[in-house]
Amino acid sequence: MTEHSNRCYRLRRRPQGAVIQEADLDLVEEVMPTVDPGQALIRTLLLSVDPTNRPWMADIRGYIEPVALGAVMRGIGIGEVVESRRDDMHAGDLVYGFTGWQDYAVADDAVNELPFAVLPSPLPAPLSAFLGALGHTGVTAYLGVEDIGKPEPGETMVVSGAAGAVGSVAGQLGKARGARVVGIAGSDEKCRHVVEDLGFDACINHRDPDWTQQLDAATPDGIDVDYENVGGPVMDHILGRLNFGARIVLCGMISTYADYGSPRGWDGQFELAQVLMQRATIRGFIVLDHPDRFPEAVGHIAGLMGEGRLTYRETIVDGLENARDALNQLFRGENTGKMVVKVADPVNAPAAPRATTAVAPT
Amino acid sequence: MTEHSNRCYRLRRRPQGAVIQEADLDLVEEVMPTVDPGQALIRTLLLSVDPTNRPWMADIRGYIEPVALGAVMRGIGIGEVVESRRDDMHAGDLVYGFTGWQDYAVADDAVNELPFAVLPSPLPAPLSAFLGALGHTGVTAYLGVEDIGKPEPGETMVVSGAAGAVGSVAGQLGKARGARVVGIAGSDEKCRHVVEDLGFDACINHRDPDWTQQLDAATPDGIDVDYENVGGPVMDHILGRLNFGARIVLCGMISTYADYGSPRGWDGQFELAQVLMQRATIRGFIVLDHPDRFPEAVGHIAGLMGEGRLTYRETIVDGLENARDALNQLFRGENTGKMVVKVADPVNAPAAPRATTAVAPT
Repeated sequence: MTEHSNRCYRLRRRPQGAVIQEADLDLVEEVMPTVDPGQALIRTLLLSVDPTNRPWMADIRGYIEPVALGAVMRGIGIGEVVESRRDDMHAGDLVYGFTGWQDYAVADDAVNELPFAVLPSPLPAPLSAFLGALGHTGVTAYLGVEDIGKPEPGETMVVSGAAGAVGSVAGQLGKARGARVVGIAGSDEKCRHVVEDLGFDACINHRDPDWTQQLDAATPDGIDVDYENVGGPVMDHILGRLNFGARIVLCGMISTYADYGSPRGWDGQFELAQVLMQRATIRGFIVLDHPDRFPEAVGHIAGLMGEGRLTYRETIVDGLENARDALNQLFRGENTGKMVVKVADPVNAPAAPRATTAVAPT
Repeated sequence: MTEHSNRCYRLRRRPQGAVIQEADLDLVEEVMPTVDPGQALIRTLLLSVDPTNRPWMADIRGYIEPVALGAVMRGIGIGEVVESRRDDMHAGDLVYGFTGWQDYAVADDAVNELPFAVLPSPLPAPLSAFLGALGHTGVTAYLGVEDIGKPEPGETMVVSGAAGAVGSVAGQLGKARGARVVGIAGSDEKCRHVVEDLGFDACINHRDPDWTQQLDAATPDGIDVDYENVGGPVMDHILGRLNFGARIVLCGMISTYADYGSPRGWDGQFELAQVLMQRATIRGFIVLDHPDRFPEAVGHIAGLMGEGRLTYRETIVDGLENARDALNQLFRGENTGKMVVKVADPVNAPAAPRATTAVAPT
């Protein structure tokens, strides 16, 4: 990388199957963007890697336009303003928005899909938290739990993807509301973390052969709220244990996303009739619809953190050149908590966290 | 049948596959029930045949206990009180309730799953209407449209099973609210009826090879409300055309019911992630939860009938001995409108309707 180049990932081909290849998403070195009046130049510091990145690459009817072939990959990130020709941003400001998968982005409200927001100064928490528990994944958890799931004391809430960025916060919010909370995750170590560190009442490893019996035993009174991040057979078993009037927070279906663009790689959802039988509700929602709710949600989560009732973990991958691998890791379930790629250290702001997971480029 | 015998269907075996066999549901002749204090003897006049009868026979976690093996088949019917030892019923009263699939039932609030209700006298409509448009299927349509779907002028509502008892009323209620209403049914003749007699804007025959393109053309602005009676591939295609904030009234999934008790005979529901993508809601409901809403719903539907804005059709099968065949006909889609079995003529009340469909026992 030269002083004045911009590395960026461009979408060359819509991925098929489980693994995103270099031929799909290609890291190239281009010239630095220039800044016109009304714009600011943002240097990406941290890039958020999210399950939803996968459907963004697919030519499907999603909740947002698919990334165009040839375009820079869409991504949420935190950056530092390095040059500003707009009144509301100044060099050194830390901003949150659609940086894309690249070293440098241009903040321009007329062009960006989401306006960049300037983070508070001084920062009340580590920078990376604003991509996770105090960012879009935390707010996602909050909206799903507080607006849709609404678990009450005496009720049982199940969280799939319990060790992930959204599930980990959602379960703790359920505990804070007084519900019994049972997680589902993909390894014994994740389950240990979910119970011991996050305080869930139980956590089932869905790779255990007898996981369905374990889940039944952990939900003896049935399931009132399903905070659903996974879909597929895990969701089917949950649907079969719904109680009367259950609420299914349809937040994600990561187990089905790799199917986009491919011949159907899964068997479909079989137990939907249980939603009828148990007079249940499934509701889908997207956090990006609710920018107005961020202050309320972040305030609530930060408050619980301050009381020692909510914590989070991150998996930080070092280097933009490892972002594609990081997304593949996420789909293999190798992260615990929020998956973040560290792109650069700030010049004028506090240091970004160091990598906690070493990644060998593959 | 002797003077003092009671013919009844007993569930001998849980049906497997599409067709309910005589070995599953067996018509036997037994002694007449006797009446204790607090009870009344009801002679069944009309028996309602509903898709939900099929899951009632399966050993699944339904919305009501499965019919026990050896027990009389559960069914909703209209009967005439022939002997009463309770103060609120008199010989000659017409009553509505869980008569079961039999000639004679005992009305006893301590035992019946649903208390029998005495119909108004004189009757404001033909007796059979109280099993259909002015009975549980009409109220089902009303609750789904008015409480969950809520189609507005300018919106598009799709109704699967559009020629059936519930779908036909639901679509007309949607029209009365000012929405564009598109039906889906299983024959050209049903589609003609749905458009010409019931006033839907369009109706697609899902047996046509190009039915998906036809549905796309008939819903150029997408789908805001899905009144879902069918499930399976029909529902999947609808899910792929949902608009932002769409409501799915999950009323029935008849295409999947024959799967109960069998190896999976269908491919599952593939497009559930569209509920997330389009921030949609799926809500299940059961009319039997809402006896308090019957007067309001029946009043609304009767009002539209009086204004000539709502009509209905029935398929009347003659003879209790043909009830099992009637249910099989329903699952083959051979009925139009409400499927009713005429069991007997009343002695003290107006005559039940004559059969409109001749059935040869198979």
